[in-house]
Amino acid sequence: MTHSHHLDPYWLRWRQRIDQCLERLIPSARISPPLLHEAMRYAGIGAGKRYRAALVYAAGHALSSSEEILDIPACAVELVHAFSLVHDDLPAMDDDDLRRGKPSCHKAFDEATAILAGDALQTLAFEVLSDPAWVRRPAASRLQMVHTLAKASGSLGLAGGQVLDLNLASQDPTLKTLAAMHQRKTGALIEASVLMGGLCATDDSEILTRLKNYARPLGLAFQVIDDVLDGTADTDTLGKPAGADRERGQPTFLSVLGEAPARQYAQDLREQAIGALDDFELDATLLIALAHFTLERSH
Amino acid sequence: MTHSHHLDPYWLRWRQRIDQCLERLIPSARISPPLLHEAMRYAGIGAGKRYRAALVYAAGHALSSSEEILDIPACAVELVHAFSLVHDDLPAMDDDDLRRGKPSCHKAFDEATAILAGDALQTLAFEVLSDPAWVRRPAASRLQMVHTLAKASGSLGLAGGQVLDLNLASQDPTLKTLAAMHQRKTGALIEASVLMGGLCATDDSEILTRLKNYARPLGLAFQVIDDVLDGTADTDTLGKPAGADRERGQPTFLSVLGEAPARQYAQDLREQAIGALDDFELDATLLIALAHFTLERSH
Repeated sequence: MTHSHHLDPYWLRWRQRIDQCLERLIPSARISPPLLHEAMRYAGIGAGKRYRAALVYAAGHALSSSEEILDIPACAVELVHAFSLVHDDLPAMDDDDLRRGKPSCHKAFDEATAILAGDALQTLAFEVLSDPAWVRRPAASRLQMVHTLAKASGSLGLAGGQVLDLNLASQDPTLKTLAAMHQRKTGALIEASVLMGGLCATDDSEILTRLKNYARPLGLAFQVIDDVLDGTADTDTLGKPAGADRERGQPTFLSVLGEAPARQYAQDLREQAIGALDDFELDATLLIALAHFTLERSH
Repeated sequence: MTHSHHLDPYWLRWRQRIDQCLERLIPSARISPPLLHEAMRYAGIGAGKRYRAALVYAAGHALSSSEEILDIPACAVELVHAFSLVHDDLPAMDDDDLRRGKPSCHKAFDEATAILAGDALQTLAFEVLSDPAWVRRPAASRLQMVHTLAKASGSLGLAGGQVLDLNLASQDPTLKTLAAMHQRKTGALIEASVLMGGLCATDDSEILTRLKNYARPLGLAFQVIDDVLDGTADTDTLGKPAGADRERGQPTFLSVLGEAPARQYAQDLREQAIGALDDFELDATLLIALAHFTLERSH
């Protein structure tokens, strides 16, 4: 039995909730322009670990928020994540042909459509959070969710991290440089996911700071394991080309540290994350299980 | 004297306000990653007609809103506009080398940086509208602004319009098809600009509907004139390659209607727009002047 077994009853349901909710949120391919909506649905629905959505649900669960309230923020973070993957895979960026076990968006469609589908997936995240039909949280909390997600997605988060990443191959980065880059590229959205789950239940700044202190090392641990898996697992398991980082000479936690120290580093980060929840007066079971899952996952 | 002379005292000030505000909102090129912030500033600051910002200011002016309140929404629409231009100019899309009288973003930088700068400019629009430091309007109104702007930018607005536009060259579109495409590609953001100016002062649905009825024909008139200028003005005046539409065989209001009927069509749309403000109990002077400017402009 793994330490993440507490999540077993949740994964399937969360993934189903996310897909059902995204089915409803992303316009049907019968709505004009069909090509764009088809590409958005292709990139957004039915695949992916839903790790970020799980963080929203787990954080909300710890604060006794209902899953009905958490669906929209969980979809919003998955929409931003899907957008970033579509753009990262473009020929001008990482030029990856395979994603989530199928051709990447610009391969299945074309480059222009993939750029615009990515753009529109990002927009949709902010549209659903601000939709007047979604009235389950007060306007002030929803505005704070918009702001949290926007900051994570922008030039000081995701987009900035990707620029730093693209320019890393020509450098010989230290662990610190690598961690700073991934804090933006992967960490910012993971932190936003946990915070948005929290914002579904509270605006207590002490609780939100605790969640942030849990999320920050967790996001880094997630990326360390991602790098280890890229270098040690096979393409079928990953759903994207294995060894792609090595092939393009991309510095990773694996190349900088080596496998055993990288795994140890991830374990230390996991302990930090779990430590941030010590004496947490609320039910942190699922957040702790997710920290374990982060290291135990195979893809 | 032109009919848009009422705007003369405003243009310079509005453009200065926008540039000063964007200077503050877009992170400095000294902040990491410098390349990304430089590209965002290149694409966002110091050029452009600021037509959409002017619509925000003019709509707010009609409802006695102060310019201090209007600055952020005006910047937000200009950020979305700048984002859309950067992506539209990409090689996979319109492949334009010149924009606002200088090399387009992917020419001045590179393609990856341009894609990410566009992404981050869009994100920034939502970030500034939801910034807790901007407290000049209640959370509910700001959330409505986020929603208005997101809808205008997404698959049923800008992004969708661009997909329809890219697939237009292979067709022989009717006036109706062309208008429906431009209603999204150009019209949606123009409508959102007017509405966001309105939302800075009121949530009265009757007033907002009036503003929408003004903005919708205006957006179309703006594009009709854009097409006429593309086919009849020179590159220096336009700040982008003249005749580009014709060169790529792109159907336009000019190619579908011919010049005189296109200008007549724009005049009819302008009258519709102005007509929507009849018996408007508020001061519509600047909105009416902007409707005239839309037809009188040289670029």
